[in-house]
Amino acid sequence: MITQIVLGLDIGGTNADFAFIDRDGKILYKANIPKNDFNTANSFVQLVKKKAHEAMANIKGGLVIKAIGIGAPNGNYYRGTIEFAPNMKWEGIIPIAEYFRMAFGVPCFLTNDANAAAIGEMMFGNAKNVDNFIMITLGTGLGSGIVANGRLVYGHDGFAGELGHIIVKEGGRQCGCGRKGCLETYASVTGIKRTVVKMLEDGGYKSELNGLSYNQLSGKMIEEAAIRGDKLALEAFAYTGSILGKALANAVAFTSPQLIVMFGGLAQAGDLIIKPTKLEMENTLLRIYKSKVSIISSGLKGNEAALLGAAALAWKEMGAH
Amino acid sequence: MITQIVLGLDIGGTNADFAFIDRDGKILYKANIPKNDFNTANSFVQLVKKKAHEAMANIKGGLVIKAIGIGAPNGNYYRGTIEFAPNMKWEGIIPIAEYFRMAFGVPCFLTNDANAAAIGEMMFGNAKNVDNFIMITLGTGLGSGIVANGRLVYGHDGFAGELGHIIVKEGGRQCGCGRKGCLETYASVTGIKRTVVKMLEDGGYKSELNGLSYNQLSGKMIEEAAIRGDKLALEAFAYTGSILGKALANAVAFTSPQLIVMFGGLAQAGDLIIKPTKLEMENTLLRIYKSKVSIISSGLKGNEAALLGAAALAWKEMGAH
Repeated sequence: MITQIVLGLDIGGTNADFAFIDRDGKILYKANIPKNDFNTANSFVQLVKKKAHEAMANIKGGLVIKAIGIGAPNGNYYRGTIEFAPNMKWEGIIPIAEYFRMAFGVPCFLTNDANAAAIGEMMFGNAKNVDNFIMITLGTGLGSGIVANGRLVYGHDGFAGELGHIIVKEGGRQCGCGRKGCLETYASVTGIKRTVVKMLEDGGYKSELNGLSYNQLSGKMIEEAAIRGDKLALEAFAYTGSILGKALANAVAFTSPQLIVMFGGLAQAGDLIIKPTKLEMENTLLRIYKSKVSIISSGLKGNEAALLGAAALAWKEMGAH
Repeated sequence: MITQIVLGLDIGGTNADFAFIDRDGKILYKANIPKNDFNTANSFVQLVKKKAHEAMANIKGGLVIKAIGIGAPNGNYYRGTIEFAPNMKWEGIIPIAEYFRMAFGVPCFLTNDANAAAIGEMMFGNAKNVDNFIMITLGTGLGSGIVANGRLVYGHDGFAGELGHIIVKEGGRQCGCGRKGCLETYASVTGIKRTVVKMLEDGGYKSELNGLSYNQLSGKMIEEAAIRGDKLALEAFAYTGSILGKALANAVAFTSPQLIVMFGGLAQAGDLIIKPTKLEMENTLLRIYKSKVSIISSGLKGNEAALLGAAALAWKEMGAH
């Protein structure tokens, strides 16, 4: 029997993955395309097409691609474009969905990576049958996807859900966006590294992280130090969680979600980040929201989430539940 | 010909209005029920029924009530209840929609007053065909209704959209909710009165408001002073707008609305409040949102908006566009 699949595509700054994914979220084939092959968007599309067709020929029983789903930084859902993405060779506004539609002859849908993660979580992860939740991805930056009334909130221009750029401290840390005090300058892998460096500079802690520079530090090192009981590392998580928790209390007053799902590098620290976040959020919440909102980790495997999210977008648009 | 109408009901803390409203938002009959008649929710419902039936008998051609729509403080859309509303005689959780359903034998829908205003704006006001907007009501407090993907955001519990209780200043002004620094302690009629009193206490301004106490002040007096060029009053509007503008810049990063509609006592000051709000919002917005979001006044008449909103809720639920 011929299996119906979608082609899920996760485009990163330096790398792309694609996979064949069935309606149940099963990955039937997966491949990586290294960044050297990214010279133009069109050559990239042709390469994916070639690799996909080679792979299909080798799969027993046969596959049919029903649609293509793409998660990409600065991906615009309405226009199917990648717009001015930082760290990418392709400049300006790239109509990537249209390129794929022409190359494969099937519908192609695109959104940003955090939105794709939210849809993946809704279809294959820990937010099944949850109509109101917020996905927070804690990586280099802080991304978010907001689901309300069972649908992703794209906003009028496709750019809703930039919680990483909620200003949480006036005159606070310099953000890459040019403004100061954005949430992601505190609550992200980069943010906790900045916190640790600041604490090291301020002194007063015996810490295994002493003497390390910003570039030498990683989120994983801070996590491991915290697991070993390093006081500075634990304080850094507590501080990060307190800022994130306050911001989430405000977020709850917006869309009143039942669930907040955390994903990404910093979220892998689990309770180290979730506990202080939850504590501060509960302390800050308006009374009507208290004890109603869960914060949990993503149900998607880290290295597959983006692909599953991209595939879920395509399945959802094609009418699957 | 018999005209199809809905019964729109606006329940306030001390007063209630109801009206017969047709599909085009035309008010065919309107009545007020003074607060003395509010002893119990059930006696209130019976009184509305009696008055409505009397009125119907006097209307030529005949009417048929298709549904009932209610806007009420602390109104819960999902449960059809008014829950712990401040300043009301009825205490606890009142299943008011169920009471009306039983009394009239037609469907009854309920939400809070700000959500009802948003739906009214969408159906009969300045947000027709706008799928993503935020309604802000600036009265005694700050209420809000968020529309995303063409639908009101209720949240999982029916309590979404409490932007008045976004904390904008840590350790800021005491709020009635028990916390500090909520947006509505600055951006509301009450908020601007507090600002004026503080400025008067601080001194340094020649102002026609000098010598007035908090209780003597009104939003209208501050507005009129500002129109006459009173520097303190103008500064108070600028300060209020700057805080509201910053908060709205964060709100835009959530749902990326095309439009923000302002309504209520303070919004009646028009450009006095809208201009400084818009200025600060634009200065604060993340680049991708700049120059994309309009702030406008409500298209609904002040004394009819709540009723039209309640009616619009009912029409919308019954499938009207």
